[in-house]
Amino acid sequence: MADVPDLDPAVSSRLRFDDAGLVAAIIQQHDTGEVLMLGWMDIEAVRRTLTEGRVTFWSRSRQVYWRKGDTSGHAQHVRSVAVDCDGDALLVRVEQVGAACHTGDRTCFDAGALDVVVGEVGR
Amino acid sequence: MADVPDLDPAVSSRLRFDDAGLVAAIIQQHDTGEVLMLGWMDIEAVRRTLTEGRVTFWSRSRQVYWRKGDTSGHAQHVRSVAVDCDGDALLVRVEQVGAACHTGDRTCFDAGALDVVVGEVGR
Repeated sequence: MADVPDLDPAVSSRLRFDDAGLVAAIIQQHDTGEVLMLGWMDIEAVRRTLTEGRVTFWSRSRQVYWRKGDTSGHAQHVRSVAVDCDGDALLVRVEQVGAACHTGDRTCFDAGALDVVVGEVGR
Repeated sequence: MADVPDLDPAVSSRLRFDDAGLVAAIIQQHDTGEVLMLGWMDIEAVRRTLTEGRVTFWSRSRQVYWRKGDTSGHAQHVRSVAVDCDGDALLVRVEQVGAACHTGDRTCFDAGALDVVVGEVGR
């Protein structure tokens, strides 16, 4: 649509979108360091996230833009965004209001612990 | 190959691999909370990561398994692994030896800050 501004080319040139036109976005609580969730963004979701102060994802299941918190109230207020060394992942640091997970958990990983063999440095 | 053990079905049933057979793996320093990098794992890389005490990825560009640190010395020793609410992302907490990024930076996001409009709660 002609009335939607483009993402700044200086930014888009640093991003490498996958075959579906998406980059992965890791969402982290800015002060505690909690990893809250992983979402996906297309170029327009990146533009909105960089310019609106709020995190917008592209929903792969529903094929719509999804501004976190608009229905749940659990908004993610943007503090910083960084792109990784190969351009296909973003680290978005936020102030999370309430639960990040749709289950009501603070993070999407809270209920998911797996059994592991713990590794020790020097072994 | 018949002599490679399978991933525990109780674990694999909780994972949802994408069309390429992969899940995203967020790697986080266990004590500081730094997000170090994002990598990809197929079912066998998950099995190795859960059972060897060291993080193994599947390299999408080289199409090989890649145990972090075997060539660089910058190993990732596993402290915990959790799967997210929809099964397509892992949070792997590690003790990172040295730099996580192949550029020599501590994290793959260190050089990637983008300009943002900061969001404030209540706006």
